[in-house]
Amino acid sequence: MTAYGEFRSQYQGALEDSRLIFYGIRYILENYLHRRWTEDDVEKADMFFSTHLAPAAGTYRYPKDLFLKFIRENDGYFPVKLEALPEGSCIHAHVPVFQLTTQGDFAPLCTFMEVLLTMVWYPSAVATLSRRCRDRIEEAFDKSVETGRDSPLLGSRLHDFGFRGCTGVEQSVLGGVAHLINFDGSDTLSAAYYAQFVLNGGEPVASSIPATEHSVMTAWPSERAAIDNMIDQYGDGLFACVMDSFDYAKALGKVLPAVAQHKLDRGGYMILRPDSGDPTEAVLMALQAAEKVFGVDVNAKGYKVPRGCGVIQGDGIKYERLASMLEAVLEAGYSAEAVAFGMGGGLLQKVNRDTMSFATKLSHVVYEDGTPADIMKAPLNAISKSSLPGVLAVKRVDGVPTAFPADSGEVAPEENLLRTVYDCRPVQVNWDKFTQLRRRVNDEWHALPTQADVASASLKAKVKDCLAKLRKRQTD
Amino acid sequence: MTAYGEFRSQYQGALEDSRLIFYGIRYILENYLHRRWTEDDVEKADMFFSTHLAPAAGTYRYPKDLFLKFIRENDGYFPVKLEALPEGSCIHAHVPVFQLTTQGDFAPLCTFMEVLLTMVWYPSAVATLSRRCRDRIEEAFDKSVETGRDSPLLGSRLHDFGFRGCTGVEQSVLGGVAHLINFDGSDTLSAAYYAQFVLNGGEPVASSIPATEHSVMTAWPSERAAIDNMIDQYGDGLFACVMDSFDYAKALGKVLPAVAQHKLDRGGYMILRPDSGDPTEAVLMALQAAEKVFGVDVNAKGYKVPRGCGVIQGDGIKYERLASMLEAVLEAGYSAEAVAFGMGGGLLQKVNRDTMSFATKLSHVVYEDGTPADIMKAPLNAISKSSLPGVLAVKRVDGVPTAFPADSGEVAPEENLLRTVYDCRPVQVNWDKFTQLRRRVNDEWHALPTQADVASASLKAKVKDCLAKLRKRQTD
Repeated sequence: MTAYGEFRSQYQGALEDSRLIFYGIRYILENYLHRRWTEDDVEKADMFFSTHLAPAAGTYRYPKDLFLKFIRENDGYFPVKLEALPEGSCIHAHVPVFQLTTQGDFAPLCTFMEVLLTMVWYPSAVATLSRRCRDRIEEAFDKSVETGRDSPLLGSRLHDFGFRGCTGVEQSVLGGVAHLINFDGSDTLSAAYYAQFVLNGGEPVASSIPATEHSVMTAWPSERAAIDNMIDQYGDGLFACVMDSFDYAKALGKVLPAVAQHKLDRGGYMILRPDSGDPTEAVLMALQAAEKVFGVDVNAKGYKVPRGCGVIQGDGIKYERLASMLEAVLEAGYSAEAVAFGMGGGLLQKVNRDTMSFATKLSHVVYEDGTPADIMKAPLNAISKSSLPGVLAVKRVDGVPTAFPADSGEVAPEENLLRTVYDCRPVQVNWDKFTQLRRRVNDEWHALPTQADVASASLKAKVKDCLAKLRKRQTD
Repeated sequence: MTAYGEFRSQYQGALEDSRLIFYGIRYILENYLHRRWTEDDVEKADMFFSTHLAPAAGTYRYPKDLFLKFIRENDGYFPVKLEALPEGSCIHAHVPVFQLTTQGDFAPLCTFMEVLLTMVWYPSAVATLSRRCRDRIEEAFDKSVETGRDSPLLGSRLHDFGFRGCTGVEQSVLGGVAHLINFDGSDTLSAAYYAQFVLNGGEPVASSIPATEHSVMTAWPSERAAIDNMIDQYGDGLFACVMDSFDYAKALGKVLPAVAQHKLDRGGYMILRPDSGDPTEAVLMALQAAEKVFGVDVNAKGYKVPRGCGVIQGDGIKYERLASMLEAVLEAGYSAEAVAFGMGGGLLQKVNRDTMSFATKLSHVVYEDGTPADIMKAPLNAISKSSLPGVLAVKRVDGVPTAFPADSGEVAPEENLLRTVYDCRPVQVNWDKFTQLRRRVNDEWHALPTQADVASASLKAKVKDCLAKLRKRQTD
C-alpha cells in the first residue's frame, strides 16, 4: 500500500501567492519513527486496548500480531518506507511532500503513522507564515533602507515572542525553529538552543537583546529608575524597554526626555516597546517621540531614521497588521529599519492544520491476488478535498517542483525530489546544517514563481481516468 | 518577590457566561518543575548564552550564580514556592490561579518560570471549550431525549478527532486529557492512555468505536463492499462509516439501502459520517436517509429517533456551529441523541493564549531594606491588561471563588483555595483520581453562576490605593 501527504491549499487568505515551505519531517522521524518498539510496548497497548471502552463492541481490536511480528523480525522498527522532500523545500500546494509504502504482511500498517506524520503541517505553517512576513519586510527595506534587503538589520525585524503562547515545550521547539529558518530574532530559547546544538553543530542561530518586561518596570520605584538601571547595565549596546506599564503617552512625553542625556552619554541604541492600544498608532507615537528627543537623519532614500532609537511592536501582531503597519510607517516618512516586530501567539499558535489544509491519503494498493489499483478520495461536492491517485514522484520542471505518476517514466530516480529518509529502519540521511538550510530556503523561495501548475500532464490524465472509474465503482 | 497568574478575560465571545476551568498545572509541575537541575545543565546554558548572539551587547547575561547556588544548596530544585487552585477548579476570569513566591537571594528568579507556567492557558482553554460544548448538548438532550441529560449517550456526543491537528505529541496529551474531563469520546489515544494509566490508576477513561476513514472506503473495490465488510466485522455493535469518498448523496440514496438488510441482520448500530459540504445540511441529509431506510421511533418528548442508525459530523465543527446544528436538528424533529460531533483542530488547536487572555504578573516585592511594596501593571489605555497588586488568596464567597489580599485577615489558611503544590522542592499533593476530578468539575461547573464579581471589597480598595500611588510614581 502507498499513501502520501500534501498541502491541499495555499496559505489561508494568500490569494496572490501559493508558495509554501515544507519543514519538520526530520523531527518526527528522529524523535518518533527511529524509536524501536518492544514487546513491553505491546503489553502496554494490550492493557490499554483491552480496557479502552468500546461500547457494545467488546474488546477493541488492534493489529497486535503485526506489532509483534515487526518487533521479532525487524528489530522493533516500524516496517514502513518513508520518502520525503528535502527539509525546507519551497513548493506550491498539491505537491506530495512525503510518501509511505508498506509491503507484504505489513501492508495494512501503511497509514498507521499517518496521524503522526500529518503533524508536519505545524512547522511548515510557521515557516511559511514567518517567510511571508519576511517578504513584506524585504519590500519595505527595499523602499526605505539605504542598503535595501541586504541590510544586516533585516534578520532581526521579526522577533519570536511565542514560547508562553505555545501549548507545551515540544511545540515551542518545533515552531520556534521553523521561524528561525527565516529570521534570527527569538526569545524562544528552547528553539534557539535546539537549532544551535542539535541542528547546527553548535554554531549560533538566534539572537536577542536585553529587554525589560512589566515586572521590571513596575518593581523599580519609578519607570525612570527602571530605565536608568537599564542604561547603566546595557546602555552601551542595544536594549529595549516596555513603555506602557502605567501611561504610555506620559512615558514617551515625560520619562523618555528625562533619561535622554543618560542614554546619550552611554552611546547605545534604545528600543521603545509599546504593548497596548492601537498597534499602528502606538508605533508612530514612539517614532515621533524618538525623533523629538533624539533627532533623525534622513537617509539616501529620503526616509527618516531616528538617532540611536527605534521601536519594537510585540502586541497584537499578525501578518496582515504587520504589512499595514509597515505601510503606515513609510507613509509617515520613517525608514523600516527603525521598526521591529515581536510576534508571539500570532507566530507560533494561531495556525492550524486548515491553514494550508494538510492531509495524508491512501493512493495505491496491490490486492492479494497481485492486481494493482490507483485509488483516490474525490468528494463530489468538495473537490478541494480530492487526493492524488497512484505512486507519486516529484521533479523540478522549469524550477518548479511538479508531481508525476512514478510509473510515467518521466522522473529518473536521481531527479526525484522524494528521497528515502527511512526504510523499515533508520537510513543515512545527509541533513543540511541549519545555516545551509536557511540559505537554501531563501534562494528557493525567491526563485519560485508565486503561482504555478504543479501537476504534470501525465498525472492529470491519470486523475481523469481514475475519477471516471471511481464514479462507476461506488455502488458496484 | 511574588507573582501570580490569572485569566484576564472570559472565553472569547462568551458574553453571557464567564465561567472557565483551570486545568493542567500538574503536568507542568511533574514534568518540568520536579526536574532537578545539575551543573551539567548550567554548563550547557553557559555554552548557549556565551554564543547566543547579542548584537553589540557582548555575552548574554543570565543568573548563572543563582543556578549554581540552588544546585549546590537546594539539591538542584528550582527555589520557588508555587501555590495553585485545585486542578479542574471552575472559576471566573480575574481569579488568581497560581502564585509564585521567591525568598532572599533567590528572589530575582520569581518570574523565571513564568513562561512555562503560563502554558497552563492551553489545557484550561480546551477544558473550557469542551465544557461549553457540553452545555449546549445538555440543553438539547433535556429538550429532546427521554432521559434528558442523564442519558448515558451524552458523554460520547463530542468526540476528540484532534491528534493529527496538534502541533506535536505533547500537545495531544495535554489537550486530549483536558477534553476527557467533560466527555469520554476520544480518538486521541495518547491522551486516553495518559489519562487512564497516569491519572486514573489504570481505570479506563475514554471510549471509541470501530470506524472507517477514506483509505478504507477507497481501497475496497466499491463503497458497498467496504460497508459490507464493516458490517461483517463489527455489525453486531456500534460502528461508523465515512460516506463522502465519492458522492455523498449517492452513498446515502443508493449504497445505504443496498446494505440495509445486511445491517439489520447483524442487529447493531450504524453511524453515518459526512465529511464535506455544509455541515448542517449534511447531517440533516443523513438523518433523513436513516429515517427512510431504517424508520424512526418518536420518543416521549415528541422527537424522532432513527432506528439503529445515527450520524457523527466531524468536519468543520466549532462551538458556534455545534450549537446552531443542534438547533437545526431539533427544529427538523430529530432527537439530539441521534447526532454526535467529532471535533479535531477546532477542539485541540484553534485556541490560543488570547482565548481567555492568560497572563502572569509580578504583584509584590520586598526591597533589600525590608520595605514591602504592592505593585501592579495598569496601562492607562488598556485597563483590561491591569494586574492585581499584593500577595493574594482565594476563598469561596457564596460558592464563588473570590480574590482577596492575603494580608486582609479575611481568608483563614484552611479556606485558601491557593494550595502549595511545590515548595522549593516537590511536596506531597493528593491529586484527585481523574474520575473524581471529572465529577467534581461537573458539580462545580453547574453550581457556579454564569457571571460573578470575583474581587473582594478589600482587594478593590487595595487596587484603588495602589493605582493612585502608581500614577504619581511614574516619573519620580
